Amino acid sequence: MLIHKGSKLLMIGDSVTDAERKRPVGEGRGEDIGKSYVAIVNALLNSACPEEQIRVINMGVSGNTSRDLVQRFQTDVLDLNPDWLTIMIGINDIWRQFDAPLRPEVHVYPEEYEANLNHMLELVKGKVKQTVLMTPVFMERNRQDEMRAALDTYIAIMKKTAERHNAMFIDVQSAYEQVLEHMHPMNIAWDRVHPNMTGHMIIARSFLKAVGFHW
Amino acid sequence: MLIHKGSKLLMIGDSVTDAERKRPVGEGRGEDIGKSYVAIVNALLNSACPEEQIRVINMGVSGNTSRDLVQRFQTDVLDLNPDWLTIMIGINDIWRQFDAPLRPEVHVYPEEYEANLNHMLELVKGKVKQTVLMTPVFMERNRQDEMRAALDTYIAIMKKTAERHNAMFIDVQSAYEQVLEHMHPMNIAWDRVHPNMTGHMIIARSFLKAVGFHW
Amino acid sequence: MLIHKGSKLLMIGDSVTDAERKRPVGEGRGEDIGKSYVAIVNALLNSACPEEQIRVINMGVSGNTSRDLVQRFQTDVLDLNPDWLTIMIGINDIWRQFDAPLRPEVHVYPEEYEANLNHMLELVKGKVKQTVLMTPVFMERNRQDEMRAALDTYIAIMKKTAERHNAMFIDVQSAYEQVLEHMHPMNIAWDRVHPNMTGHMIIARSFLKAVGFHW
Amino acid sequence: MLIHKGSKLLMIGDSVTDAERKRPVGEGRGEDIGKSYVAIVNALLNSACPEEQIRVINMGVSGNTSRDLVQRFQTDVLDLNPDWLTIMIGINDIWRQFDAPLRPEVHVYPEEYEANLNHMLELVKGKVKQTVLMTPVFMERNRQDEMRAALDTYIAIMKKTAERHNAMFIDVQSAYEQVLEHMHPMNIAWDRVHPNMTGHMIIARSFLKAVGFHW
Amino acid sequence: MLIHKGSKLLMIGDSVTDAERKRPVGEGRGEDIGKSYVAIVNALLNSACPEEQIRVINMGVSGNTSRDLVQRFQTDVLDLNPDWLTIMIGINDIWRQFDAPLRPEVHVYPEEYEANLNHMLELVKGKVKQTVLMTPVFMERNRQDEMRAALDTYIAIMKKTAERHNAMFIDVQSAYEQVLEHMHPMNIAWDRVHPNMTGHMIIARSFLKAVGFHW
Amino acid sequence: MLIHKGSKLLMIGDSVTDAERKRPVGEGRGEDIGKSYVAIVNALLNSACPEEQIRVINMGVSGNTSRDLVQRFQTDVLDLNPDWLTIMIGINDIWRQFDAPLRPEVHVYPEEYEANLNHMLELVKGKVKQTVLMTPVFMERNRQDEMRAALDTYIAIMKKTAERHNAMFIDVQSAYEQVLEHMHPMNIAWDRVHPNMTGHMIIARSFLKAVGFHW
Amino acid sequence: MLIHKGSKLLMIGDSVTDAERKRPVGEGRGEDIGKSYVAIVNALLNSACPEEQIRVINMGVSGNTSRDLVQRFQTDVLDLNPDWLTIMIGINDIWRQFDAPLRPEVHVYPEEYEANLNHMLELVKGKVKQTVLMTPVFMERNRQDEMRAALDTYIAIMKKTAERHNAMFIDVQSAYEQVLEHMHPMNIAWDRVHPNMTGHMIIARSFLKAVGFHW
Amino acid sequence: MLIHKGSKLLMIGDSVTDAERKRPVGEGRGEDIGKSYVAIVNALLNSACPEEQIRVINMGVSGNTSRDLVQRFQTDVLDLNPDWLTIMIGINDIWRQFDAPLRPEVHVYPEEYEANLNHMLELVKGKVKQTVLMTPVFMERNRQDEMRAALDTYIAIMKKTAERHNAMFIDVQSAYEQVLEHMHPMNIAWDRVHPNMTGHMIIARSFLKAVGFHW
Repeated sequence: MLIHKGSKLLMIGDSVTDAERKRPVGEGRGEDIGKSYVAIVNALLNSACPEEQIRVINMGVSGNTSRDLVQRFQTDVLDLNPDWLTIMIGINDIWRQFDAPLRPEVHVYPEEYEANLNHMLELVKGKVKQTVLMTPVFMERNRQDEMRAALDTYIAIMKKTAERHNAMFIDVQSAYEQVLEHMHPMNIAWDRVHPNMTGHMIIARSFLKAVGFHW
Repeated sequence: MLIHKGSKLLMIGDSVTDAERKRPVGEGRGEDIGKSYVAIVNALLNSACPEEQIRVINMGVSGNTSRDLVQRFQTDVLDLNPDWLTIMIGINDIWRQFDAPLRPEVHVYPEEYEANLNHMLELVKGKVKQTVLMTPVFMERNRQDEMRAALDTYIAIMKKTAERHNAMFIDVQSAYEQVLEHMHPMNIAWDRVHPNMTGHMIIARSFLKAVGFHW
Repeated sequence: MLIHKGSKLLMIGDSVTDAERKRPVGEGRGEDIGKSYVAIVNALLNSACPEEQIRVINMGVSGNTSRDLVQRFQTDVLDLNPDWLTIMIGINDIWRQFDAPLRPEVHVYPEEYEANLNHMLELVKGKVKQTVLMTPVFMERNRQDEMRAALDTYIAIMKKTAERHNAMFIDVQSAYEQVLEHMHPMNIAWDRVHPNMTGHMIIARSFLKAVGFHW
Repeated sequence: MLIHKGSKLLMIGDSVTDAERKRPVGEGRGEDIGKSYVAIVNALLNSACPEEQIRVINMGVSGNTSRDLVQRFQTDVLDLNPDWLTIMIGINDIWRQFDAPLRPEVHVYPEEYEANLNHMLELVKGKVKQTVLMTPVFMERNRQDEMRAALDTYIAIMKKTAERHNAMFIDVQSAYEQVLEHMHPMNIAWDRVHPNMTGHMIIARSFLKAVGFHW
Repeated sequence: MLIHKGSKLLMIGDSVTDAERKRPVGEGRGEDIGKSYVAIVNALLNSACPEEQIRVINMGVSGNTSRDLVQRFQTDVLDLNPDWLTIMIGINDIWRQFDAPLRPEVHVYPEEYEANLNHMLELVKGKVKQTVLMTPVFMERNRQDEMRAALDTYIAIMKKTAERHNAMFIDVQSAYEQVLEHMHPMNIAWDRVHPNMTGHMIIARSFLKAVGFHW
Repeated sequence: MLIHKGSKLLMIGDSVTDAERKRPVGEGRGEDIGKSYVAIVNALLNSACPEEQIRVINMGVSGNTSRDLVQRFQTDVLDLNPDWLTIMIGINDIWRQFDAPLRPEVHVYPEEYEANLNHMLELVKGKVKQTVLMTPVFMERNRQDEMRAALDTYIAIMKKTAERHNAMFIDVQSAYEQVLEHMHPMNIAWDRVHPNMTGHMIIARSFLKAVGFHW
Repeated sequence: MLIHKGSKLLMIGDSVTDAERKRPVGEGRGEDIGKSYVAIVNALLNSACPEEQIRVINMGVSGNTSRDLVQRFQTDVLDLNPDWLTIMIGINDIWRQFDAPLRPEVHVYPEEYEANLNHMLELVKGKVKQTVLMTPVFMERNRQDEMRAALDTYIAIMKKTAERHNAMFIDVQSAYEQVLEHMHPMNIAWDRVHPNMTGHMIIARSFLKAVGFHW
Repeated sequence: MLIHKGSKLLMIGDSVTDAERKRPVGEGRGEDIGKSYVAIVNALLNSACPEEQIRVINMGVSGNTSRDLVQRFQTDVLDLNPDWLTIMIGINDIWRQFDAPLRPEVHVYPEEYEANLNHMLELVKGKVKQTVLMTPVFMERNRQDEMRAALDTYIAIMKKTAERHNAMFIDVQSAYEQVLEHMHPMNIAWDRVHPNMTGHMIIARSFLKAVGFHW
């Protein structure tokens, strides 16, 4: 597995990551780590390779955009000294453009999204062993849908930014689409954004496969 | 207006109709009538033509399918002696096929849907001055989506059944689609089914236009 | 319609406006905009003319008098840069004189009421395209009632002030009185001040008719 | 005082009487007796003439009409064997005609009101030492108001019925009107029906004066 | 009545006075004035002599000793400019000596009690038309009980202090004892300190008789 | 110790015994056994002589009189087959006579108290190894107090009844009085009936001393 | 995978299985399936092989012993017609012997445990394609601990019974012990019985490996 | 008894001590002193030797390690001027090493533990009449368990430190072990750390025996 023994893995993002994690730091007993893919990643690592002693921390915050991540990056990422960092962000950057079209001050457009990702990757340079960018997910199969089309733009930006900084890039949206060939999105999320445990398992598997985890 | 002075108008359906109405009968002070299009219809009639004294009753029940309506039709419709009756039903008949595909016992397929509508229209024959069938709504613009495609089937059944029984037919789905040309469905409902007040207003306007209400 | 495409409409007032709106700013998903006439205006505009993209914001605060509005005018009106502004205020200025007659420090008498309205209209000069003054409402049909008589005085002041500043003036009290010819005030509000949805619809219709909205 | 030492005084009515009394019987520690005029009567008797040992019981039920009283008269009055009985009922008989004008099934019109009062007075004949009819109260000073006018009719019926059966008659409405010469109804009740403690004190004093209580 | 028309009457004390009054000032609608004798005094004045327009304010705070009153005297008494002031304090000064005998820091002994009363009476000199000292109450009939004996000492101090400053002195404890000849203290308060409504009525009557109120 | 290894000890009574025990049977984990002297007896037995394996069950019910115990004796005592049974009852038999003097139907006078105790002792004859009668407690040191005087009567009845049936008799009231020589009753219970943990410890010690428990 | 496409898999047990599942049947949206290994099995099947359409149902009930399972076997297993059935039971059969040693009526000893397992396996004969017995788990590494020793006895019984009926047998306790070589039991469960998500993942993996699931 | 009449005894520790005590200081009415051994010590002293007037204060804080005690030692111990001080600390110093092995920042290793104890004993020198160190307890009978083995190390440190400073040392762990010869730890605490009342009684008895208390 790419993650070395004794590593600290910090996973940051929005409500898909957060899922009721404890404040200020999402780790500890019971559901302190939240109920998202982060909890699943932690449980899979602990149960399948306990000898690796990977420490997993959830730093998601519901409603966050990439703009919000930049603002809390020092306290919520750098101060915690992670070895590995995953960033799964962007759906709120897009979503507000469609569910609150008349409130432009809460929209984050592609240029700013790219700048925010770049800024974060600059900040971790030399401080984190490996950064992973994970695409936001919108469980919409109609690629003509405007919001789905916007997602493609943001994913392309994320991919390009990852390449520029030699970050790992995980296309979670693609992983979802393979599953959605066999079931309707309504079976995972009524709003096509906030997944049930099946959806979180898809995200966890995408990440673990990318880092060479053996079941 | 087609609804005569002093009429009793009973509106039955699922969660789109219900919206926290009072039990056992959805009328009275405050929000006893619920917070759906039924409340809006009542408020518009009371404020614009108070002299008509139309009595409006909400009998929606969240989660209901057409099968459920048939089961409670005697107590919840016939026993209350309405002059006008609206039935807006079917989205749960369809939805469960997609969000709970492995639980066939809660699915209501087209044949049963047609039988249920027919059965109800038989029951009101001679007892209600006017029955109105209102289509269920799914705020999905991709007509290739399987759930959206299924909706077309159910709407066709409803229309055919209305014609067979000389019931009034209101295509609420079409009314939505005109609005959705100007905004994304996310602006009305994250899950594309449960509308905010804008969505309820679309339903209320569809109904009131059909009955000749003047603003 | 007088309100141009893309306008921002801010509606400020007391509990009749507030109705559980979100803080600090009353807009967003679900019932963030509150449950008063503001929500109805928003829903009617969105459903009947979505292409106009009018942004509606609720800034009512329960219990407010005109004195309170002046105190929060900078943060709650000017800082939000509205194109249209409606002010519906005054019932608490009057009411406290009758339900708390021994507490003069919470009474706002006519002179101060006029000064407060004037002050606000001065502040928006050149900053807002159109200001609308909407009368407070007291659902009392006995014009000999002292509180009802006081209302007449305050309405006259509001009307005069609107004319002096070329503000639009909407006599909501008159609109109510037409409805009250057909029903007792108890059917709208037990306390004759806080309306049910029928009462809010009367206010919404008064406003929308005044701005040339077509149903 | 007319009430003899050791008497049991049962006071029945609607929400004005009830005021959160304990079920099934409104007596006991703390606020088991409710917070209405019944509690005040009890406290005044206990503090001013504790040696009289009058037992006071509150049997009010919110929302009750005279029709409801008849239905629960056996269990809630006769089975408790009172020496004195007060009945303060009628405002809901009237009120529903105005706040729910389209729901005739919950209206109690004058003929039925008279029949209900008569029926109850027949039932207590020979079983209760003294029955007292206390008028309902509507804090409306405009005698042209339809609901206020209706009240006059019901009060006249109550008075006539009291005379027919030699029951004591207390005109609580008149007692209120003397106070309302000096303050607006809003100072006692926003809805003109449910009094604050001042209003309950008016009722308690009306009763106690009628039975010859000395302060 | 000694209290002139339009007077402001402020009543301060401990939990016997407080009884869930509103903060920061105990007046207003509903139960803002609390549920103690203060509410009864207000209701009796409003119902029996509404034309006198006496304004009553409750400033009791649960758990207070005379030491606490001194600390909040400026904000809670002087800043509110009362015409009449009642002070009913002392039971907690005594009580803590018996229910927390090992915590001397919360005891207020007679010397300090006298100093505190003196200090408050000095502060109101020339600012309040009439100050009234009302004795604390302990519903214990056994004068040999140490806590009851202590009460006698504190009452004597209060009486002497009242005389020194020409304050009115009301011996509420004596008023209770007359009632307790006819009932056991358990019928008023399980803990012999916190009265039910009968006990509050005794206090209210003591005060009102002292100021010449006519029922 | 008199209680043999492996015995089942059932302790029944009123609120002093109950103290939030679990229903229907007061034993199990955490605070299932309640928070009264029963929990202390259990904890002392378990910690000081765990090898004795005494099973302790709390069957107290708040508000009970001896009349209530008789009514539930079959299900709550006999059906549970205890080896030892303690009955601590009577304070409510007395108390209601003083805090609810006008409600004779809830009073239990000495004759009935004696009959109830007798009846229970008859019922356990031959079924329980040892029955223990424990006196009710009233923390009043004034023996002239009527309620304290009544207690003496009931204690005498309990003692006489215990002797008649060869039941063990424990004078808990005397044990309290020794402690109350050194502190005021207010330090144990504001209402002189419901003890804090110190009071429960007095009861537990009285019982354990009587059965020869060694600390 | 051994489980065929379209199978219904019912998993029954105690609190380790239950984990807040919905009643009466543990399936549906959100956390209706509970939060235990059952939810993980469902999520893994849905995400890794959605085309297999395995329906998973949670029928665990907290606190259950094998005796309880037998009592509800008809309604909770047979009436639901599963294709696959897993039974994970026994820890409460044992645990009560140690945390409630004096309450023999809640203990289930080895003979009864064997009979209960046998009885259930008889009942499903010919009705279920495959039954799986999963051992209870006690995260105690000291094999001399009496409760741990008892577990060995029960596991042996389960294994023998599985063989007798050709049921599949999964030794979950062994799977735990492999993990516990690398961490202290406190890291999974403070009480050594109720696992966190890591512990549930161990159970889910044991099951899925046994049925040939490929990650 | 070693504790002199009128002494103030302050008991500090972690959750075993805390048990829901009141903040900021754990003393007063009802359960202000918490529900741990501190409450039992207080109740035993008050009931068995009330004339000694020992004042007991609970200053435990859940989750505390010895590091936390040092940080709040000034405000929570020295500022309260105790005569006797008990310190029962250390289980969290150890526990976190096993239930949160990957979070070294919350572990307190032996060297620091010793330094913390030393530091506290230095601070009280000359200020407290007698300091008592009470060992933490882990109800694990398997001495090969790593956490149990660690406990031995910490107990040895505590004992050595007590000797160095002439503090009293109480081996509570040994007291537990005598009881655990007769029952399984599950009968006292599911997690082997947080005791039920039996466990708290063991601690209280250990302390009281050490100070020469006579039952």
